[in-house]
Formats: sequence, structure tokens, C-alpha cells
Amino acid sequence: MSKAQSAAGTPVYLISPSSAIAADAPLELALANLQTAGFAPRLDRAARKARQRFAGSDAERAGAFARAAAQPARIVMITRGGYGLTRILPMLDYEALAASGKQWVGLSDFTAFHLAMLARAGAATWAGPALLDDFVMPDGGALDEVTVDGFREAMDGLLEAVGFRCSGPSGVEARGTLWGGNLSIVCNLLGTPWFPQVDGGILFLEDVNEHPYRVERMLSQLLHAGVLDKQAAILLGHFNRYRLADADRGFDMPSVVRWLRANTRTPVITGLPFGHASPKLTLPHGATVALATEGRTCYLVLDEHHHHADDHHRHSHDAG
Amino acid sequence: MSKAQSAAGTPVYLISPSSAIAADAPLELALANLQTAGFAPRLDRAARKARQRFAGSDAERAGAFARAAAQPARIVMITRGGYGLTRILPMLDYEALAASGKQWVGLSDFTAFHLAMLARAGAATWAGPALLDDFVMPDGGALDEVTVDGFREAMDGLLEAVGFRCSGPSGVEARGTLWGGNLSIVCNLLGTPWFPQVDGGILFLEDVNEHPYRVERMLSQLLHAGVLDKQAAILLGHFNRYRLADADRGFDMPSVVRWLRANTRTPVITGLPFGHASPKLTLPHGATVALATEGRTCYLVLDEHHHHADDHHRHSHDAG
Repeated sequence: MSKAQSAAGTPVYLISPSSAIAADAPLELALANLQTAGFAPRLDRAARKARQRFAGSDAERAGAFARAAAQPARIVMITRGGYGLTRILPMLDYEALAASGKQWVGLSDFTAFHLAMLARAGAATWAGPALLDDFVMPDGGALDEVTVDGFREAMDGLLEAVGFRCSGPSGVEARGTLWGGNLSIVCNLLGTPWFPQVDGGILFLEDVNEHPYRVERMLSQLLHAGVLDKQAAILLGHFNRYRLADADRGFDMPSVVRWLRANTRTPVITGLPFGHASPKLTLPHGATVALATEGRTCYLVLDEHHHHADDHHRHSHDAG
Repeated sequence: MSKAQSAAGTPVYLISPSSAIAADAPLELALANLQTAGFAPRLDRAARKARQRFAGSDAERAGAFARAAAQPARIVMITRGGYGLTRILPMLDYEALAASGKQWVGLSDFTAFHLAMLARAGAATWAGPALLDDFVMPDGGALDEVTVDGFREAMDGLLEAVGFRCSGPSGVEARGTLWGGNLSIVCNLLGTPWFPQVDGGILFLEDVNEHPYRVERMLSQLLHAGVLDKQAAILLGHFNRYRLADADRGFDMPSVVRWLRANTRTPVITGLPFGHASPKLTLPHGATVALATEGRTCYLVLDEHHHHADDHHRHSHDAG
């Protein structure tokens, strides 16, 4: 670790590949919090741009990836999600971005990048926090420790295993590629060149602001496209911030999970701490992981070779 | 035409394949209006059922298709859309439903049936009104004449051509399979066995309650999956009942149409009277049609053979 890094924290390069940062967003507080957590944030020069609802033009947002790959910080995190990545997917050089060895971190709309990196370059990325989602709280209060500690451990190569309370079949044992993310985005890429062909994988899904009937409709697409039955396990994270109506008459996320379990042979496990809520794990997207359930606990064990791009950075007490 | 039909109007068999009819829906008024318009409605025995948000169990809703195929009325219309068809797509016998020669009419969630009939049986269906959308107005007032007359003409085999005010390139001339419907549903079927492979088609799309960014995201899926570039024309209908936010900063449906035109070589024509609004054309889904634009007018000319399943019913003064 260089002297500059130890003085100022681990460098994090921040990009805005999707929606513009709102004029009233607590950006400075989020940057200060990231610093306090031990990181040295640096904003991409287009990160604060705004063109209509986007953080700059398509070319500016696509250019941020190349700039991130060329600068020295190993960690690249998004400031926020929203919408905009699918517009620039055809403009990115995935092999070059993978070869940069950066740790690309984000979620939500960034799921499109996670899937595309896996599909086009076989590369691992990180499904995890975003600056304005996780490094500043709506009430301005303390950050979620589990989220921040998990992020730090993952970035430092110290993440070996995580356990969490779950519901679903006990005794599941699986090993495969961990992939997925935001359900709307996963479905949105079906049939396109950026949808990875993963057999025997561990598919994790979350979504926000989507009524359970829409969640079910999206899951039915993955089911009918043959994606679900060829996975080793399905992990459901947070599905939140939706509003039920009287006409739902008891239809809710539990109904969706029952429907899913009745229609796929793949084990469905709920309770993954991932999505648009805290705490949020930082997960190696595209890496091989082992999954085991034991009663109401689910364990994810990261493969010793998941840090293929930056093994030289790993700590000596890491199991690898 | 039998005596019973001429006395009571043209029989219409009504099914509820998706969401349940709300307890306070003006069902009786809609049925009376359909009767006044010259039709004799008959409700499928499960049409008023409710199980959670659905109009009965999956088996009851799937069974309605077989019952509709077996009864004598030639026209089968949905009472309403909502959600539920994608759950029962694997349960339907498309060859048998096509062989029944029925004129299946509906829209919205029913788009899934339109696409599946085309994909699995090469069969034409009708994208058109639904009982509770078009045969009763929110204010209880008069029905939309263009919608009702167009439906009647289409069902009677009298529909030869329609013209409407449009925007887009003038001088477009195309001939191909008319297909599409609700954009959310079209995208939802991508990658599944119920998505028709149409080359050189005329793809029509509409949607409701979807923010323009979501419309654009869905269109980008069709674009990136290669669907748009291989069509002869794209016809956009109503995209309505969405709410813009301050953060959109001018991003709206016109931005989406501009983006679409910049990204596909296929002519994009807006103004099709179809979707969740009045007036609404009744269009032969899966039939061959010719399209021509001349200045700000678009003409759709129905192929003389579009009534393949019921030529014996056609009127003598029909051009066919």
C-alpha cells in the first residue's frame, strides 16, 4: 500500500453511468462519510453532469468507464443507479475494462454492466453499495455497519464467507457462478448480447418499486426462457417499496415465492441481504461460490480463486 | 345468420383470462351497451370469479379458452386485462384454439395470447377492445363511435383499410405481418416459446402507466435483441397515464421517439389509434397488411386473405 493511500484511505473512483445526481442530493456528506470509512473518493469529471434525466450524454457516461480503467484507483463505484446503462452497453469495450483489473462496484441499473462484463468478457465485478444509497442515510445519521464492513472486507480480499438468516429448503448444497442483481434489468437484457449464458449458477435477484404481480411476471419470463431451471439455486434479496391494492386480495410477495417454488425445480432461498435496503452484502458477481443451507441459515463461501484479476493484492491471512 | 342471432345481435362470448373484475365494476352497464351496439353477450361461467387478484384459478382461466372454442359464438372477447395470462400460457392448446376459427379480441395482458397464437399456431387474432375498457365509459356516457364501429366492421369482415393522422417519414411503403401490442408484454415474452419470429413485419406497440424511461428501456431490449431492425415498420400507439418528475428535465415520450429513430433503421410512425385510450382500432394481429404513409396520413390496408379461418362468414360486398 502506498504512503498516499494509507494517509488518505483506499482510493475509490466514482462514476455516474446512469441517472444524474439530483441537485439537492447530499453528495458532500456521502463523500465525507466514504472518507471517514477509510476510503479516498475521487469523482470522475462527468460524475456531476446532467442532461435531461441522465448524468451527461451517452458518450460522456460511456467515457467514464474508459477514464476509470485508466486512472490508478483499484476500486470504481457508482454514485447512483436510475436509468441509462442500457443505452451505452453497445459503446463499452468489455475486454479492455476487464483487463484493467478494477473492482467495479454498484447495483440496480449497474446490473446491466455486471451481466455484460460476464457475458462479453467472462469477468467478475462486484454487486454492492452505491455512494448515494449506502454512504449517506436518508436521516443523515450513521451508516449501516454491516454494509460498510462487508464492502471494506470484499475490497480488501478478506471476504471468505457470509451467513444470513434465510427461508427455504434446508440441506441445499450448490456451487456455481454467482450472478444476477436487479430483476428488471436481468429480464431487460434477455435476448440481447449482454445476457450471460450461465448453467448451474447461483442466481440472486432483488427489485424495488415493483408490485409483486410485476415481480411474478418478470420471474415467469426467466422461467419460460429456461433460465431458472438450469440454475443450481435462486437467492431472493429485498423486494420492497411497492404498494398493494385492495384488488390484490392477499396476493403479495409470499404468493409470488410460492408460485415460483411450484414452478421451478431449482431451490428458492429468500432472505439474501441485498437490494435497495440495508444491510447490503458486497457480492462477487460472476465468481464461483459455494452455497449451503442449514436450517434457517444460508452460507455463501467464496471460491479461493474469485479474485482472478488482482490476486497480488490479497492479504496474507486470506484463505486463498 | 340464424334467427336467434339477428334477434339478439351477433353473439360475443366473454372470458376473463387475467385479473378479476372489480366488485364495483360497471359490468351490467357494459353488457347492456354491448347489446345496444348490436351484439349478444354471453359470459363464460368463470368470467366473474376472483381468486386473489386473478379471475379464478389458473385452471379456471385456462379452461375458459377451451370453453370459448367449444361454444357457438364466433367472437370471443376479454372482459378486461390486468395480469394473469403469462401464468397460463403453458396450459393452452394453440393449434386447437386456432382450429376453432374464433375471432379472439382483446388487448393489454391479452397481448400474450396474441403473440402465442402467432408463435405456436401461425394464427391471426384481433387486437381490439375489451368489455370493461371500451363498452362502458368512466363517466357512464356514450361509447366511442370510432372504436365501436371499427370493432363491428372488423368482426363482420368489412374492414379493408384504415387511415389515421401520423408523424414520421412520408412515403413509407411496407407489407408484412402486423403484430405486437402492449410493449411490456411483448418484452416479457422475449426468449420464451411464445415470442413469434417475425421478419419484415409491421410491429405496433402501446403501453400505459409506464414512465418514458421505462418505455425506452423496453424498446432498447427489442432493439438489442435484433427485433426492431428486422421489421418493415414500427407503429407507435398510445403511451399514456404516466407521471413525469422534475428530475426528467424535459425527458418525455418525444425524447424516446427521437432516441428510437436514431437507433433503428426501421421507419417509426407515431399516431396509431391503439392502446389504453379512445379511439381504438380493431387490428388483425398476425395477418398480412400493407402500410403506406403520405404526408401526415398513414394507411393500413388489410390483406384480402386475412380472414383465413372464417372466409365462409365474409360478406358478399367485402373486397376479398
